[in-house]
Amino acid sequence: MIVLFTDFGLTGPYVGQVKAVLARTAPGVPVIDLFADAPAHDPRLAAYLLAAFAGEFPSGSVFLAVVDPGVGGPRRPLAVQADGRWYVGPDNGLFELVVRRARSARCVEIAWRPERLSASFHGRDLFAPVAAELAKGHPPPGPECPLAAIRHPELPDDLAQVVYVDGFGNAMTGLRATAVPAAARLVAGGCRLARAGTFSDVSPGDAFWYENANGLVEIAVNQGRADRALGLGVGAVVAVEA
Amino acid sequence: MIVLFTDFGLTGPYVGQVKAVLARTAPGVPVIDLFADAPAHDPRLAAYLLAAFAGEFPSGSVFLAVVDPGVGGPRRPLAVQADGRWYVGPDNGLFELVVRRARSARCVEIAWRPERLSASFHGRDLFAPVAAELAKGHPPPGPECPLAAIRHPELPDDLAQVVYVDGFGNAMTGLRATAVPAAARLVAGGCRLARAGTFSDVSPGDAFWYENANGLVEIAVNQGRADRALGLGVGAVVAVEA
Amino acid sequence: MIVLFTDFGLTGPYVGQVKAVLARTAPGVPVIDLFADAPAHDPRLAAYLLAAFAGEFPSGSVFLAVVDPGVGGPRRPLAVQADGRWYVGPDNGLFELVVRRARSARCVEIAWRPERLSASFHGRDLFAPVAAELAKGHPPPGPECPLAAIRHPELPDDLAQVVYVDGFGNAMTGLRATAVPAAARLVAGGCRLARAGTFSDVSPGDAFWYENANGLVEIAVNQGRADRALGLGVGAVVAVEA
Repeated sequence: MIVLFTDFGLTGPYVGQVKAVLARTAPGVPVIDLFADAPAHDPRLAAYLLAAFAGEFPSGSVFLAVVDPGVGGPRRPLAVQADGRWYVGPDNGLFELVVRRARSARCVEIAWRPERLSASFHGRDLFAPVAAELAKGHPPPGPECPLAAIRHPELPDDLAQVVYVDGFGNAMTGLRATAVPAAARLVAGGCRLARAGTFSDVSPGDAFWYENANGLVEIAVNQGRADRALGLGVGAVVAVEA
Repeated sequence: MIVLFTDFGLTGPYVGQVKAVLARTAPGVPVIDLFADAPAHDPRLAAYLLAAFAGEFPSGSVFLAVVDPGVGGPRRPLAVQADGRWYVGPDNGLFELVVRRARSARCVEIAWRPERLSASFHGRDLFAPVAAELAKGHPPPGPECPLAAIRHPELPDDLAQVVYVDGFGNAMTGLRATAVPAAARLVAGGCRLARAGTFSDVSPGDAFWYENANGLVEIAVNQGRADRALGLGVGAVVAVEA
Repeated sequence: MIVLFTDFGLTGPYVGQVKAVLARTAPGVPVIDLFADAPAHDPRLAAYLLAAFAGEFPSGSVFLAVVDPGVGGPRRPLAVQADGRWYVGPDNGLFELVVRRARSARCVEIAWRPERLSASFHGRDLFAPVAAELAKGHPPPGPECPLAAIRHPELPDDLAQVVYVDGFGNAMTGLRATAVPAAARLVAGGCRLARAGTFSDVSPGDAFWYENANGLVEIAVNQGRADRALGLGVGAVVAVEA
């Protein structure tokens, strides 16, 4: 299974072109659209989103993970293996939380280059072919690189910022619910929010936080939009009051 | 074939996570995105949309149909078989029109529960695995339940409301075109509309109603947007003047 | 491989219904979403977009290409073969640039009609079944038609207009980069733009033009939206100053 995690956007030909490469190179391998709207150009925020969602996918899954503002520049292309899953994408911190939370991990710097390498679309030209080969069980095309060389120790274990706002206006944070006491208040958009089990536990229009279906602290409003009610966008800072 | 009919939205990881479960549980079974933007949180409106579109799918198709405002509450999970197609989702009226219009139908209450059942995402955790098993030809995991127990006789046979607005601003109603005389006027947004065969039968900018490609009465404007021209959104009431 | 190139929109059931037909008629054939938001109702603009993106797909690919404002009217349905790829869609100029740039091409007028042919959705009822049969290697269902009968010599070889704006606000033109001198200025939205290699070659906020990953002249702003900064939408005219 190849899982797409990108900021390519839902419109435009970009995801489709990547899928065409995958279909040709790894025919018959299922391809799953997880996020096409990961935090744009922000691998730091995206790192927490990727780590929260990757764990449910089976061992052997290959993540094509491209949030790559430095495309065309000197950043290295990587294939990282963590807990049996592969992650293919740029060396910019995107894989830091996946690696940090893994029981085992290793890293390969992609040395292979395609015949045609556009300046702006390494997702299609470089990362997709590598992901397809890994999904077929082939070895990664490059030398092992020390894990230490790709680590970003400056990133916190949990991030008290909004990392995604879904179509209903619910705001996912980079905080794992297990890292926040159940009785804690969350301060977001100037409001102090209590925890609830799920939407129907609060009155319509009330804002709250809860553990979402992927283990993240998520801010929501029952029958409403938390993003508008609280003025929350991707990157907004929240605070935990224990 | 598994057909997705949900209000999960086009953005966000929800449809992708469901598809990952389907790909693992029923590998090789085609999965079709029919609606990810069915009327949100409104199974009554969605019921008319589902019934209008389901009929073109072949016998044996499995609909994963999740418009489920009561997720996490006491509503029962169902697998309904109607005219050879399966419908998996919540017991909230979503399947009423499918059942009412079927030549044959039966109902099973899903008794199986997964190891992990989140409070907010039964589409992924409960309904998707069941749909995948049904698509493989396995029996539904629970006891038969009397059809009478899931019926919603209060719903009309045809619904004089807008049930969907497409990306072009065309407004589908819950009225089957066969239920409306061809000479009838439709009153919508304060305007009285005549029937036309298709867009090019009227002048640019003119509003009209027609039988859409799925048999529903649809309100449209040639080379324009009916939703804006007439102020129509999902749920808007229309009237038939015979 | 079947490639979808339509103006059906990202929302709504239209692409899904087409895919259901393809899955039934050509099971196992990969289907790629290239564009669901090609220039709406404008086959002339869409022709340049299609020609720019088709070349990367392998021989034997079948393009289901439907930008069809005349649906239900007298325009002929076509299956055009160019450089080993099939293009199925309406006879309205959409295939002109593909044919003009091809080393070899031929044309078939689709004579087959389905049992059910809706007035408004030939993409599902007529073109999708034909595309599926071609993808299986079956011959096109109709007589050869002289290429001259479907040509549109009035279209220029390159089009100095915006043909697509992507989700990031980058504006693709109908100009191939090979047709524009590298030192040329592009005048768009009242601004004169120089060429750059890629985004990171200019300062944040600066507008420029570059050869995009599909060979088209594209107008962009580093870390910004060219569409808003320059007031560019689909159809906007640009000029080349050599």
